[in-house]
Amino acid sequence: MKSTRLEAFSDGVIAILITIMVLQLKIPKSTSWEDMKHLFPVLTSYVISFVMIGIYWGNHHHLLHAVENVNSKMLWANMHLLFWLSLVPFATEWMGESAFNAPTVALYAVILDMCGITYFVLLRIITKSKAHHPDLSNPLKKQVKKGMTSMILYSIAIPAAFLHPLISGAMFLAVAVLWWMPDKNIEKTLDPHTHS
Amino acid sequence: MKSTRLEAFSDGVIAILITIMVLQLKIPKSTSWEDMKHLFPVLTSYVISFVMIGIYWGNHHHLLHAVENVNSKMLWANMHLLFWLSLVPFATEWMGESAFNAPTVALYAVILDMCGITYFVLLRIITKSKAHHPDLSNPLKKQVKKGMTSMILYSIAIPAAFLHPLISGAMFLAVAVLWWMPDKNIEKTLDPHTHS
Amino acid sequence: MKSTRLEAFSDGVIAILITIMVLQLKIPKSTSWEDMKHLFPVLTSYVISFVMIGIYWGNHHHLLHAVENVNSKMLWANMHLLFWLSLVPFATEWMGESAFNAPTVALYAVILDMCGITYFVLLRIITKSKAHHPDLSNPLKKQVKKGMTSMILYSIAIPAAFLHPLISGAMFLAVAVLWWMPDKNIEKTLDPHTHS
Amino acid sequence: MKSTRLEAFSDGVIAILITIMVLQLKIPKSTSWEDMKHLFPVLTSYVISFVMIGIYWGNHHHLLHAVENVNSKMLWANMHLLFWLSLVPFATEWMGESAFNAPTVALYAVILDMCGITYFVLLRIITKSKAHHPDLSNPLKKQVKKGMTSMILYSIAIPAAFLHPLISGAMFLAVAVLWWMPDKNIEKTLDPHTHS
Repeated sequence: MKSTRLEAFSDGVIAILITIMVLQLKIPKSTSWEDMKHLFPVLTSYVISFVMIGIYWGNHHHLLHAVENVNSKMLWANMHLLFWLSLVPFATEWMGESAFNAPTVALYAVILDMCGITYFVLLRIITKSKAHHPDLSNPLKKQVKKGMTSMILYSIAIPAAFLHPLISGAMFLAVAVLWWMPDKNIEKTLDPHTHS
Repeated sequence: MKSTRLEAFSDGVIAILITIMVLQLKIPKSTSWEDMKHLFPVLTSYVISFVMIGIYWGNHHHLLHAVENVNSKMLWANMHLLFWLSLVPFATEWMGESAFNAPTVALYAVILDMCGITYFVLLRIITKSKAHHPDLSNPLKKQVKKGMTSMILYSIAIPAAFLHPLISGAMFLAVAVLWWMPDKNIEKTLDPHTHS
Repeated sequence: MKSTRLEAFSDGVIAILITIMVLQLKIPKSTSWEDMKHLFPVLTSYVISFVMIGIYWGNHHHLLHAVENVNSKMLWANMHLLFWLSLVPFATEWMGESAFNAPTVALYAVILDMCGITYFVLLRIITKSKAHHPDLSNPLKKQVKKGMTSMILYSIAIPAAFLHPLISGAMFLAVAVLWWMPDKNIEKTLDPHTHS
Repeated sequence: MKSTRLEAFSDGVIAILITIMVLQLKIPKSTSWEDMKHLFPVLTSYVISFVMIGIYWGNHHHLLHAVENVNSKMLWANMHLLFWLSLVPFATEWMGESAFNAPTVALYAVILDMCGITYFVLLRIITKSKAHHPDLSNPLKKQVKKGMTSMILYSIAIPAAFLHPLISGAMFLAVAVLWWMPDKNIEKTLDPHTHS
C-alpha cells in the first residue's frame, strides 16, 4: 500500500475529529449570565483540543509523508493512533462540561498520553523499518526525543490534575510548544544554510 | 509542505462544517402550526450560514490555490481561520433557536468578524511572503481591500444587532455580495480582454 | 476553477450527508416489541434516503465529470443543489419519526422536488455553456428529459401524500428507477456497438 | 467510471463512520463510580466496531484497488455494502448502552453478517467480471474462502448471542483475526519468494 492512501484516510479522520467537536457545544438556555457562564470551560476545553488535534495533523502528516511504502505493522500502528485520537472529543466534552473537574482532566491527560504513546510507537516502527527517505534520519531521531519528552510530561500530568488542573494544563501547553512547528527539522535537513 | 495538502484538509473541514449544521435542525414535535413555526428562524439562520460558509469555501480555495509552498506561519494562520469557521454552526444554532434574539445575532456577528479577521491575516501573510503567482498581485490587492471592508461591516454589525437584528442582517448580506464571485479578479488577470 | 475540485468538494458533502443520517437513528429504550416497532418507519425512511442520495452521487458525479471548466454560475448552481440535498437528512428524520404522517411525506417530496429542480438548473447551465465534452451532447439531452420527468413526478407526489403516502412512495420509486444507472447513456455514446 | 473515484467516495464514507461513533459516547453525569461504570460496555462496544470498520477499510480498499474499471453492478454492490456498514454505529450504540443485552448482540451480529454478505457479493461480482489484475486471481480466490467462513461464523453468532453474548464475541474475534492482514495474499502473489 502506498503511503498516500493512508495519509488521505488519516487526514480525513482527523478533519472529521477536529470538526465534530463543535457538535458537542450545547447552546445555553438563555442569554442570561447564569446560563452563559458554563460556556467558558466548555469553550476553553474546545480550544485546547482544537490546537492539540491541529498539531497532531501537522506532525502526523509529515511523518507519513516521510514513508514511501506502508506495511501492515505501520497500518495498524496508525489505526491505533487514530483510535486514541478519536477519543479526544469525548474527553474534551467531559472536561468542559465538568468545568475542569480533577478526574476529567486526569482522563484527558490519559487520552493525550495514549495518543503520544501510539504516535511514538508508529514513529519507532517507521524509523526501524528504514522505510523513510535517508535524509530524514536525523529529523526523525529528534522526533523520537520529542516523543519521549511528551510521554513523560503527559504521564506526570495525569496525577498532577488531582493537585491542580492548571499544572496539567501547563504540561499540555509545554507539549504543544514542543510540537508547534511540524516541519522545522525537516526544513533544516533539506536546506542546511538556514541552520546557524 | 505543498499547498495541495493544506487545501485538501481545509476543504474537508469546510465540507464537514457546511454539512453537520443540518444535524442541529431539530424536528418539530408535531405538524401543527404551533410546533412548526419555530422552524422559520432556525431555517433562515441555516440558510445564512450555508451561504456564508459556501462563500468562504470558494474564496479560501482560490486563495490557497494562489500559493505554491506553505510555510508554518501560513499553516497556523489557516488553522486559526478554520477554528473560527468551526464555531459558525454553534452560533447558527443559537441564533436560530433564539429566533434572532439580539445578543445571539451580535455573537454571530462576532464569529463572522473573527473569520473575516483571520482570513485577512492569512491573506496578508500570503501577499507579504510573495509565495503567490506574480500575476496574482493585483487581484490579491483587491482582496485586501475587500477584506478590510468586510471587517468594518462586521464590526458595525455587532453593536447594530442591539438596535435591530435586521441591520446586522443587511450587513451580512453586503459582505456576501462583496465576495459572491470568488474568481472574478483572478479571471480578469488571466484574460484581460474580458476587462473593458 | 477545474471541475475536479468541485467534484471533490461535492463528493465530500454527499458522503457526509449519506453517513450522518445514521446519527438520527435513536436507539429504542428496550428490546420489547412496544419500544422497537417505531424502528420500522424510521429505518424505511433511512433506506429511501440512502438510495436517493446514492443515486444523486452517481449522477452528479457523472455530470460534473462531463464538464472541463467550471464558471461561477455552475459553482453557485451546484451549491444550490447541495443546499437542498443537505436538507434530506432533516426531512428523512421527520418522516421516519412521524411514521409517514402525510404532511411530513409531502415535505419530503418538496425537498426531493427542490433537489430535482436545482439538479435540472445545473444540468441546463452545463448544456447551454457548451462546457462539456462534445460527444456527450446526446446523453445530456436525455438527462434533460429525465430531469423534467422527475420534476413532474415529484410535484405530483407533494399533494398525493395527503391522499395516501404510498402514492408518493411509488413516485419516489419511479424516479429512482429512472436514474438508477448513472452512466448508461454515456457508455452508449462512447461505445455505440453495445447499442442494438 | 474509474475505480479511484469509487475508492475515494467509499474511503470517505468509512472514515466518517469510524469517526462519528464517538459522538454516541455520552459523558457520565458525574465522576462517581455509579455513573461511570456504564462506560465499560459502551467503550468495549466502541472498540469492537472501531476494529471491525478498520479491518473493512483495509480489505475493501485493497479489493477496489484490484479493479480497473467499475461497472454499474459493482457500483450498486458497493453502495449495498456501505449501507450495511452505515448501520454499524447504530448497532454499536445499542449494544453498548444495553450492556451487551442478548438481543442487541444478536442484532449486531445480523448487521455484521449483512456486511459480510454484501462484501462477498461485491467480491464475487469482481472475480466473475475479470475486471481485476490477472495476477490477483489467486489472492481473490482466497478472499472468497475467507468470505464464506466469515458469513458462516456471523450466522452462528446471531443465535449464539442468546446462549451467551461472549460466544458471539469470540466469533467476531475469529473473523477479525481472519481478515486482520489485508494485503498478505496480494503481497505473496507479487513476491512469491516470501512464500515457503
